[in-house]
Amino acid sequence: MNGMAGSQKVAAVVQAAMASGRTALTAAEVSLVCGAYGIPTPQEGLADSAPRAVELAGQFGYPVAVKIASADITHKSEAGGVVLGLSTAEEVAAAYDRVTAEAEALFPGAHIDGALVQQMVPPGREVIVGATTDPTFGRLVAFGMGGIYVEVLRDITFGLAPLGLEAARSMLDRVAGAPLLAGVRGQAPVDREALARLLVAVAQLVTDHPEISEVDLNPVVASEEGVVAVDVRLLLAPPPAERPANASREEILDQMTRLLRPSAIAVIGASAEAGKIGNSVMRNLIEGGYQGPIYPVNPKSKEILGRPCYAQVADLPDGVDVAIFAIPAAAVAGAMDAIGRRGIPTAVLIPSGFAETGRTDLQAELQAVARRWNIRFLGPNIYGYYYTPDRICATFCTPYDVAGPVALSSQSGGIGMAILGFARSAGLGVSAIVGLGNKADVDEDDLLTFFEQDDATRCIAMHMEDLKDGRAFLEVAKRVSPRKPVIVLKAGRTVAGARAARSHTGALAGDDKVYDDLFASHGVVRAPGLLDMLNYARALPLMPTPAGEEVLIITGAGGSGVLLSDACVDNGLTLMKVPADLDASFRQFIPPFGAAGNPVDITGGEPPSTYRATIALALRDPRVHAVVVGYWHTIVTPPMVFAELLVEVVAEARLAGNAKPVVVSLAGDVEVEAACELLFQHGIPAYAYTTETPVAVLGAKYHWARNNGLIPAAS
Amino acid sequence: MNGMAGSQKVAAVVQAAMASGRTALTAAEVSLVCGAYGIPTPQEGLADSAPRAVELAGQFGYPVAVKIASADITHKSEAGGVVLGLSTAEEVAAAYDRVTAEAEALFPGAHIDGALVQQMVPPGREVIVGATTDPTFGRLVAFGMGGIYVEVLRDITFGLAPLGLEAARSMLDRVAGAPLLAGVRGQAPVDREALARLLVAVAQLVTDHPEISEVDLNPVVASEEGVVAVDVRLLLAPPPAERPANASREEILDQMTRLLRPSAIAVIGASAEAGKIGNSVMRNLIEGGYQGPIYPVNPKSKEILGRPCYAQVADLPDGVDVAIFAIPAAAVAGAMDAIGRRGIPTAVLIPSGFAETGRTDLQAELQAVARRWNIRFLGPNIYGYYYTPDRICATFCTPYDVAGPVALSSQSGGIGMAILGFARSAGLGVSAIVGLGNKADVDEDDLLTFFEQDDATRCIAMHMEDLKDGRAFLEVAKRVSPRKPVIVLKAGRTVAGARAARSHTGALAGDDKVYDDLFASHGVVRAPGLLDMLNYARALPLMPTPAGEEVLIITGAGGSGVLLSDACVDNGLTLMKVPADLDASFRQFIPPFGAAGNPVDITGGEPPSTYRATIALALRDPRVHAVVVGYWHTIVTPPMVFAELLVEVVAEARLAGNAKPVVVSLAGDVEVEAACELLFQHGIPAYAYTTETPVAVLGAKYHWARNNGLIPAAS
Repeated sequence: MNGMAGSQKVAAVVQAAMASGRTALTAAEVSLVCGAYGIPTPQEGLADSAPRAVELAGQFGYPVAVKIASADITHKSEAGGVVLGLSTAEEVAAAYDRVTAEAEALFPGAHIDGALVQQMVPPGREVIVGATTDPTFGRLVAFGMGGIYVEVLRDITFGLAPLGLEAARSMLDRVAGAPLLAGVRGQAPVDREALARLLVAVAQLVTDHPEISEVDLNPVVASEEGVVAVDVRLLLAPPPAERPANASREEILDQMTRLLRPSAIAVIGASAEAGKIGNSVMRNLIEGGYQGPIYPVNPKSKEILGRPCYAQVADLPDGVDVAIFAIPAAAVAGAMDAIGRRGIPTAVLIPSGFAETGRTDLQAELQAVARRWNIRFLGPNIYGYYYTPDRICATFCTPYDVAGPVALSSQSGGIGMAILGFARSAGLGVSAIVGLGNKADVDEDDLLTFFEQDDATRCIAMHMEDLKDGRAFLEVAKRVSPRKPVIVLKAGRTVAGARAARSHTGALAGDDKVYDDLFASHGVVRAPGLLDMLNYARALPLMPTPAGEEVLIITGAGGSGVLLSDACVDNGLTLMKVPADLDASFRQFIPPFGAAGNPVDITGGEPPSTYRATIALALRDPRVHAVVVGYWHTIVTPPMVFAELLVEVVAEARLAGNAKPVVVSLAGDVEVEAACELLFQHGIPAYAYTTETPVAVLGAKYHWARNNGLIPAAS
Repeated sequence: MNGMAGSQKVAAVVQAAMASGRTALTAAEVSLVCGAYGIPTPQEGLADSAPRAVELAGQFGYPVAVKIASADITHKSEAGGVVLGLSTAEEVAAAYDRVTAEAEALFPGAHIDGALVQQMVPPGREVIVGATTDPTFGRLVAFGMGGIYVEVLRDITFGLAPLGLEAARSMLDRVAGAPLLAGVRGQAPVDREALARLLVAVAQLVTDHPEISEVDLNPVVASEEGVVAVDVRLLLAPPPAERPANASREEILDQMTRLLRPSAIAVIGASAEAGKIGNSVMRNLIEGGYQGPIYPVNPKSKEILGRPCYAQVADLPDGVDVAIFAIPAAAVAGAMDAIGRRGIPTAVLIPSGFAETGRTDLQAELQAVARRWNIRFLGPNIYGYYYTPDRICATFCTPYDVAGPVALSSQSGGIGMAILGFARSAGLGVSAIVGLGNKADVDEDDLLTFFEQDDATRCIAMHMEDLKDGRAFLEVAKRVSPRKPVIVLKAGRTVAGARAARSHTGALAGDDKVYDDLFASHGVVRAPGLLDMLNYARALPLMPTPAGEEVLIITGAGGSGVLLSDACVDNGLTLMKVPADLDASFRQFIPPFGAAGNPVDITGGEPPSTYRATIALALRDPRVHAVVVGYWHTIVTPPMVFAELLVEVVAEARLAGNAKPVVVSLAGDVEVEAACELLFQHGIPAYAYTTETPVAVLGAKYHWARNNGLIPAAS
């Protein structure tokens, strides 16, 4: 829509305005910019006299508006500088004289160019389009419905600039007022494509010209005919400093592999004294079963836990990939320098006492030393990390050894311990648990780059309070998530939470809605709470990707069927309208007073064969894409009998090529807990005493699949 | 606002309109009704000629509107019968001629009275006030913000008619657009009192005149000056049949006591054959430990499980309070008649095969028999019931014996089994679990009337798919909940869920928002899901009522503090702004790099004494009303050490008269599960691996306290 020439013209205008110290563009400059980027505005022209204004109005056709033209007056309406709905030459001339006279009177120092004569816009739906700068993600495009009510409800959505047309289209659907765009009460729908193109254009504008710090198109009138930006404000500010380029993916991968899968480990500050962190780390490494060499470093010991001890880092043998630090904060920078000299490429900084306690100086110092030696490090202020495929427990916490497909990270030690406890209690198979703490170096995108190619990892769950580099994270997440779901618990969602995060890790959170929107558009599944994240992480890798949106509930308990239906709606799932032939097939198996349709209610008194027949039918029929099973504990079909039959039916379906997500809600006496365990062991997410959790994890699977474009559109 | 005379005039108008077969009132009649009930409308008058219209306009002052006056034309605007903004006599005369001519042309048969001349309303905020008829609750008043956006968002709230002024005021706060009433962007706030009075008036109108089936005041223009209902529609319909009067509270209580605390029990269809329902019921009654006489009835047995068996009901000894039915559906009505003859006052109908399977005839038959003998009964189609204080397990399910303060009921057998399993697994102390099934007789309000005076019950949780008599339930709930929290899981919240409920128990759910609003205004706590209901039921009786809104978080894990803060906001809790002196007191106990404020972050490395000192301080200070504790598992303060110290601190505070709600989130390895158990045993709700659940149950306690007016307003 804009050629190179257009962009260069804009650059010249912006440079000139910046050079003259201005923070906003004039109407004429705005007009040029909009022209260059294909942002439709009303026909308009600058008049330097009342007769010229009348002449322009005659060209555009009545009615017109007359607006004061001055770079020094930004809020024109409030300054009385706007007159709308002028229908005759006399009115236009009078309006010109009035706005220029009032501006001169109100703003004695202002330079006044004259007045803008503007075509009035036809009626339509008022929307708001803008661009802004976020501390975490940089340039964002915003879209919202216009009107005062929306300000109260904050119905707005964000996209990352630059923006593709498809992403722009999906932004239009993300506001609560979206139905208004499609037309309600018999109104015509607005031109969505024109609106999407407008978002793309604004995104391109702020991407090409980082000096344009804020764009405000308010209102944009959208109608069947197209869109018109009625009022356009463009603000200027010195562009933010360019971030230093990240290392290449290969380099990051090499360093992360040495950090998380080291050939040999040194423990700086290893100790023989029980209760010391340096002792716990040694003990966990050894008892955890790590097979590579472990070298304790401590000038005061000859041997620690049966391993010969080194007096100083310089004495260490070759081949050490990572140094675990268990020394006081004040000694960390010195030891960092020592490992650099010795050629050790990575470190794990357990010690506290850095930025989180106000000692930003100590943190900056160790960052400088690490950069000098190109050392990558975790922390400081962390519990360490676990990597189960190599049986590494590089931590002072309790060891963990249930290997499995889920990699987890946390910014907080307390949350790390909750992850560990839940994982052990639920038997959650884990590939890694990594503490990130102050994130003075390694952060989430580095970890994602490693887990992306780690064969032991099939799902990644991350607790975070902030992102050091939002764009880098989104870029990697978008690449990784289609194959390995990325689940994020972003703490500090609320204003109070964000304040607490600031005092905890100094995290600076922007508008939480930005995280919501950008995570979704980059394939990330957001977990609303801690237990949700853990439940999603446990269940998502077990479920195959659904081939479509049609979800069927089969239940032995009508009451569960009702609650499961509610939960499906709550979690954005589509309850299949069962086709007549399939409905008839179900009716063959269920009692006459049972209900086909959806839920399929097989009723409570049925034997195992009824569960088996109906579930098998649902798995076999290609029109059903996911199955929610509600079990009711009865004497006729006890919990373990049910669990075993379901395991068989699902296994048979998988063998026959009919792999579909199946989740289970079990209502019954405590025996259902063992049934849940059995089902989970066989890859079927199952939960006792709740109708919400099974549907919530299925909903998360669907969010993931949709966010990553993995569900074919309905035929 | 309206005297008896006004109400009588309205009655006369309504009767006359009904008598002439009309379903709407004319403009003139509407005007009379509004006058009688103090519903402010624009000044207006009926003109039967253009000159009369001009005369009226001159009286009211310009601008005016002219509207066609005809009882046969309800949607005037759509019929072209409304002309607004008339500023001169000529315009008024022309408008009169036009609307009458068009109406004659468009509605040839319509009787046209002339045209209404109406004062135009000053600018203000448009709102909607109405009254409607709900299948469950009867006459409701509705309030919402006006405008097309609101139709899309369905931002509307409901109140039960008649309505007090205080209830009307609180309705104004329940819409999302409420801030608009207070004035945004420098606008003046609207006259809330006038708006509240308008709601009261509309509620009174539909209460006094049940023939008025629908009231639609749209728009009402609200401004600083007051409110004006610009357009008023009143529809008529034959009033719904009066419900038969419920029995007196004393009578219900007497019957429910005989049902749930019987002196002797008969089991109709008792069986010696294991696996039969009649055998399971006998076994549960005996093994459960019921101390009263148990009489099996079965013509084929002499003795069942050591108890002499009766051939028929007529043979039973005196003093039987309840008969448990374990016979086929077809035999129930006959047996009901037999127990009636024998003078047994209550029954428990376990059998299925009635309305839920389409046999409404069988259900109607047994209802008729029961009414004839004044028998109250549970079911049919239920698992039975438990009443632990008397060790009654009148059910074919597994027995349950952990006595405690919570009474539960469920409409569905599956949900009943989930309640039982959760209760056993969590060690939830229960007074009763009652199946309601088809609710052909006893329903939730009967049970509430019993639990209200049952000393063993301190909290009531109910799963329901519908309410047979919404008003009766609300009335009893409002009376009971201030002393014993009433928690409701209303299934069928969503359209899909409601459809499933209809096919399950034939439940007819109206707009779910109605339940939300009416539950809240009658003191009921609504649980969003099954597990939420169970969690609330377990935790609410343990917590004292908070004396105010100020909630303080004390945490050893900064990361938990952030998530707990988010959860407080999510659950509508107020994070206390800690006064400077209290802040200073906390700082005495926590390390310099910890954070006072809220959360109080004592940091992870602290010994038990720091937890003890800070929590004791919070419990002692009267400005803190509830405490959320975040624990982080460390070697310095292991889980059980923490749990024991917290039990002590809370006990000391209670002894000192400082009883406050305290809830705990525990982050750590699996040992935290035992710590949670210990804390629960000592009356402190505590949860592992989650920051959401402890805050959710505290939030439920606050919802309950606020809904029941138990929290003093902040000074």
